[in-house]
Amino acid sequence: MADVKTQVSFGILGCAEIARKVCRAINLSPNSILHAISSRSIEKAKQFVVKNSLPESVKVYGSYEEVLDDPFVDAVYVPLPTSLHLKWAVLAAEKKKHVLLEKPTALNVGELDRILDACESNGVQFMDGSMWYHHPRTAKMKEFVSDTKLFGQVKTIYSSSSFFPPQEFFENNIRTKADLDGFGALGDAGWYCIGAILWAMNYKLPTTVTALPATTHNSNGVIMSTTAALHWEQEGTTATFYCSFLSHETMDVSVLGSKGSFHVEDLIIPYEESSASFSFTSGAAFVDLHIGWNMKEQEVQVQNELPQEALMIKEFSRLVKGIKDFKIRPDKMWGDISRTSQVVLDAVKSSVDSGKMVYI
Amino acid sequence: MADVKTQVSFGILGCAEIARKVCRAINLSPNSILHAISSRSIEKAKQFVVKNSLPESVKVYGSYEEVLDDPFVDAVYVPLPTSLHLKWAVLAAEKKKHVLLEKPTALNVGELDRILDACESNGVQFMDGSMWYHHPRTAKMKEFVSDTKLFGQVKTIYSSSSFFPPQEFFENNIRTKADLDGFGALGDAGWYCIGAILWAMNYKLPTTVTALPATTHNSNGVIMSTTAALHWEQEGTTATFYCSFLSHETMDVSVLGSKGSFHVEDLIIPYEESSASFSFTSGAAFVDLHIGWNMKEQEVQVQNELPQEALMIKEFSRLVKGIKDFKIRPDKMWGDISRTSQVVLDAVKSSVDSGKMVYI
Repeated sequence: MADVKTQVSFGILGCAEIARKVCRAINLSPNSILHAISSRSIEKAKQFVVKNSLPESVKVYGSYEEVLDDPFVDAVYVPLPTSLHLKWAVLAAEKKKHVLLEKPTALNVGELDRILDACESNGVQFMDGSMWYHHPRTAKMKEFVSDTKLFGQVKTIYSSSSFFPPQEFFENNIRTKADLDGFGALGDAGWYCIGAILWAMNYKLPTTVTALPATTHNSNGVIMSTTAALHWEQEGTTATFYCSFLSHETMDVSVLGSKGSFHVEDLIIPYEESSASFSFTSGAAFVDLHIGWNMKEQEVQVQNELPQEALMIKEFSRLVKGIKDFKIRPDKMWGDISRTSQVVLDAVKSSVDSGKMVYI
Repeated sequence: MADVKTQVSFGILGCAEIARKVCRAINLSPNSILHAISSRSIEKAKQFVVKNSLPESVKVYGSYEEVLDDPFVDAVYVPLPTSLHLKWAVLAAEKKKHVLLEKPTALNVGELDRILDACESNGVQFMDGSMWYHHPRTAKMKEFVSDTKLFGQVKTIYSSSSFFPPQEFFENNIRTKADLDGFGALGDAGWYCIGAILWAMNYKLPTTVTALPATTHNSNGVIMSTTAALHWEQEGTTATFYCSFLSHETMDVSVLGSKGSFHVEDLIIPYEESSASFSFTSGAAFVDLHIGWNMKEQEVQVQNELPQEALMIKEFSRLVKGIKDFKIRPDKMWGDISRTSQVVLDAVKSSVDSGKMVYI
């Protein structure tokens, strides 16, 4: 009987700050192990090992190719700048490595399709690095939104994702460079708003996307802040979102239905690691003479056994193990979800650039 | 020495449902007294007296003219359909009655200007019936938004105001009739969204207003639901709002600044009569590795001595008494505030009708 490894071995391409969080998540997830890290500079990679107290067993490579050539690596996590995703995600897939790709997934949906095609034709799993999908709170909120008796139909959605980084961010961060992460705040913070909105709409694409005439660019032409509106013609549903590097920390989502509504203020990164909450009302109405309400918002608290990023790794590794050990086909759902976000991201960017409404 | 009445005497034109709440507020306010009510049908007016247990001292008139001709009436509250505001508010002012006018104030800003001119030239006070301005919570929120150290600059605002009335509303309510309240949900629920947004912007008018291609009209051509976006070019600030008769009860406002943010879920009608709250954060950030936050939202609870509608009456009556007893000039602030809301309301309607962005 063949020796079936019980854990999925990860290699990481690049030592981005977010890789620190994912390193920890790989170690926390019971079905995963960190096997290798890499940087274009071996020195930077070694510093990463020290900074994150990684065990000596972790391989340290001075190039991404070496990770892809390591036969013990099952899966790669790719937190490289967006402009490098196409090259490295496709190469990884061709080397039969499963691909966990940081968001935004690509510079445009054409690139993403090439990545997804490479994953499919090489039989490897694809998933983007949006962690919040994997929190049990998200499943609980979905239960509520899907309950037509309690929630009814989705009528409008609002989301904001913003933060105000220190000055050095604007000078050095890849998310402010046109040649690295050309979407800027839209690709970073906006990815979450778009994802949350599509999630509430069961990933149905909107009919139109309109960026407001209020986008702020930096001197490199990268979006620092924008507001956009989405419209689903058949449902009559609207959504608006605001994403920004110029505002206080937010990650709000409000979903308003015909019979209920809910909101969450810490969607992407919960206030606390081991539990998270959202607030909802259903059947709210004013009492006699329109003085007061018949109810207040209720808070639903949801515990999580592992941090959401570890749950993401666990789910990704579960799928990888299914493919490796039981020859199950890769789950296309995660690529499909990423693709809807990328399509809307592209449309918002196109609307920002043209100043016009974009039909999808 | 002349006999100075200590209380301001109110007459009410029309027996709308909202008049019940305002009757109670007049009685609760220490500087006001209900002197007369009226309806085009004396029978309806008499029923109103019974339904609201009004004292026998209250005069009951079968026409609005009689209220205006009653020399004991200092001020009128006008909850008539919007299409009747111009006629009755101007007549009231000409009869030297101070005017508390239900919102939306007029069918367009031209009409409102005629009302404001009539009030000014007759030396009477004007105020619209938006109650939430008068809650001490509103002042407390303003304190926070105005604190540049805690809140910074306003970057984006979101507001929703909605409810899902029973079927009979859609058949009979004046807010569904083109000839009575042509603005529909925009003039009713949307008035509050617009007011809250302008309040956060210190009543500075936006540069542009854009209704999304998602407006629902009823068979009379009246707006049942719409989403619109506002933009202040100089500040780079955006706002979006959703107002609807087709969604669950909401009255949310979220204001996001460069250094802080706050939100309130029960702006227009607080959950409870004697206190209300809002939530805010300032200086929020993720902790190490982007796991968790350095703080949660804080809830600020504000007590109120009287229900907000009684505080509105009290403030209105205070101004009226100043004019009557001390010959102080009417306070133009309230008319100016109403006017900004009316200008934006008109622009949203115009954008809905034209499908185009409207410059203000």
